[in-house]
Amino acid sequence: MGRIAIVGVGQSKFGKRSDASLRELAFESYTSALDDADIESSAIDGSVVCSATHYDKQRSPAGVVSEYLGLSPKPTFNVEAACASSAVGLRIAWSLVSSRLHDTIAVVGVQKMTELSSGEIQELMGRAGDVMWESPFGTTMPAYYAAYANAHMARYGTTEEQMALVSVKNRSYGSKNPNAMFQNPVSLEEVLKSRMVSYPLKLYDCCANADGSACLIITSAEKARKISDRPVWISGLGLASSPMSLAGRKGPMTSFDATRNAARMAYEMANIKPYDLHVAEVHDSFSVTEIINYEDLGFARPGKGAKLLEDQGTELGGRIPVNTDGGLIAKGHPVGATGASQIFALVKQLRGEAGSVQVDGAKIGLAQNIGGIGMYASVVILHS
Amino acid sequence: MGRIAIVGVGQSKFGKRSDASLRELAFESYTSALDDADIESSAIDGSVVCSATHYDKQRSPAGVVSEYLGLSPKPTFNVEAACASSAVGLRIAWSLVSSRLHDTIAVVGVQKMTELSSGEIQELMGRAGDVMWESPFGTTMPAYYAAYANAHMARYGTTEEQMALVSVKNRSYGSKNPNAMFQNPVSLEEVLKSRMVSYPLKLYDCCANADGSACLIITSAEKARKISDRPVWISGLGLASSPMSLAGRKGPMTSFDATRNAARMAYEMANIKPYDLHVAEVHDSFSVTEIINYEDLGFARPGKGAKLLEDQGTELGGRIPVNTDGGLIAKGHPVGATGASQIFALVKQLRGEAGSVQVDGAKIGLAQNIGGIGMYASVVILHS
Repeated sequence: MGRIAIVGVGQSKFGKRSDASLRELAFESYTSALDDADIESSAIDGSVVCSATHYDKQRSPAGVVSEYLGLSPKPTFNVEAACASSAVGLRIAWSLVSSRLHDTIAVVGVQKMTELSSGEIQELMGRAGDVMWESPFGTTMPAYYAAYANAHMARYGTTEEQMALVSVKNRSYGSKNPNAMFQNPVSLEEVLKSRMVSYPLKLYDCCANADGSACLIITSAEKARKISDRPVWISGLGLASSPMSLAGRKGPMTSFDATRNAARMAYEMANIKPYDLHVAEVHDSFSVTEIINYEDLGFARPGKGAKLLEDQGTELGGRIPVNTDGGLIAKGHPVGATGASQIFALVKQLRGEAGSVQVDGAKIGLAQNIGGIGMYASVVILHS
Repeated sequence: MGRIAIVGVGQSKFGKRSDASLRELAFESYTSALDDADIESSAIDGSVVCSATHYDKQRSPAGVVSEYLGLSPKPTFNVEAACASSAVGLRIAWSLVSSRLHDTIAVVGVQKMTELSSGEIQELMGRAGDVMWESPFGTTMPAYYAAYANAHMARYGTTEEQMALVSVKNRSYGSKNPNAMFQNPVSLEEVLKSRMVSYPLKLYDCCANADGSACLIITSAEKARKISDRPVWISGLGLASSPMSLAGRKGPMTSFDATRNAARMAYEMANIKPYDLHVAEVHDSFSVTEIINYEDLGFARPGKGAKLLEDQGTELGGRIPVNTDGGLIAKGHPVGATGASQIFALVKQLRGEAGSVQVDGAKIGLAQNIGGIGMYASVVILHS
């Protein structure tokens, strides 16, 4: 396997972006990534466009995005994996470059969600679960993750206060991220008193639907050395699936098999252990998800995720700072853009460009991204 | 680049399949491809699921298809390129194997369309065009291709009779394909007298929406030699895009730039010329599309496609037999399955297993697949 690098990253402002269409959002992060890489668009020989389906009327968005970015007639690929779309797009870009079918690929994650009504969004979210056996009964994302939260509370004694601490931490970091949707911190009390969405998850335990995009420029080692004096290398890639239906899964609902399998693959490929990591981005679709992820990624033993958080182990200065960009909870969750946005934050950390949230001496980082209710999980390990 | 082979192919019956759900259709072609390769499902280490979006309520179908095929927890990828979905899936599978990230990938193209009303289908087809500047004005696939047909008639004098001959040829071959939706031949007069859809395209000039699936098993050269005594090799891969909006395109509407660019890439990679080919599958979404494709693929000079057809150059015994499985016009067009179905037919030809439509001594073949109104085109060259 050839070494593959990320030489440019870009991200739009996330949030309610009524000022920009899908293609315009894509353009913002693409041009920003080109600037970051200090290359021209002509250096890109293909694009992987990642957008979760049905949120937009536009089918096959790579067609219109690639046209708007001025990339026609170059090949373009639509890749989708629900909330993990652009993480999976990165894996495909890695392969396209590593196989030498392409030299330099732009992975563009983009989503526009805020023009839909809350009811439409809930309906569409449910349809990322099994539409034959589950979504007709009203299941949707907050309810799915609430089931995991209840199981974690029952098995390990995890409390609502502990979950709320995830939101407090992430909103605090989000207040330092100019691209975040929510830039005001929240207190523990505010999280606990926010309105109930699906017990035990309250409004501030949940990430928000958003508009936004993020872009990654992926290239070969030879090209990277010519283009960049600060390439970030992809050293581990893991991707796994789980049955889409909860009925098809085994074991207690306190862990995501897909994350554990993807993490094993990524650690093995990078030849490192969890304690070698300096910084991480994990999928905090809900506060409880972040706690479960600590355990699935090996940052804490099963049932000890909340303790790691309480001990400030995942804050700046702790054992492994997590979601120093604010995570999904503060940034918002424009589904197709989220995976690339995590990599954007990680690249900034590994280049020492993370400003007030910089982790001192960060050289090795991990990004974990979950699709749907754990039917896909991607783990990516980067080093500078 | 490592050599990559197709070692198993499967296809479901295409047509109105009210007996089978999306996942069940996928299962039919997948198990058939495993049987064809004479391997167990455990030999597959990932799947690429190709299904055009919005036709089904199920979002992110790889989740449910991968679960139903028994492939969890292996990685799975949703790849979509409108009518070219599974051809693009093949390109991605090639990269995943060639980069050694995966050993053996199942590309599963699947679509279920016949439960939607004709109005719903027309609306969704239009949304594979630009939803900001075109589809709100009522554009949809027959109208888009009718514009190309009119331009070809105006520029080259191509006639309705010549276009109808495509349908006569393909329906004749379809009558010999047990998987085809339409198994009765049609006469020239029947095509010409069928009801007008969008001038000059009449009902029998158009392919039909269908349900169905097709599956390809892709592996490395080392694995292929162990598994199979009749591997078919992928020697050329081309993929290109065009602006999605017609307004964004240059030149007369008598040719698809994306096809010409993809063909150039594929011929170059395979190091062959059009006249080296023994057999081809081309995208006959409409009768006129096949004639244009002859020209774009270099089977005939610009404006001479209809002449090649009239001279029986694309029939069995002719210079290059085309769509000997009946093409989209006879098989039906279950969008996500079509690209893989073309490769299925080509593999059968190159293995000498095409029965009554076998092209004597076929060793090198080409499959061309168009996405939407030419915003994507894939050209794949195979040899035995």
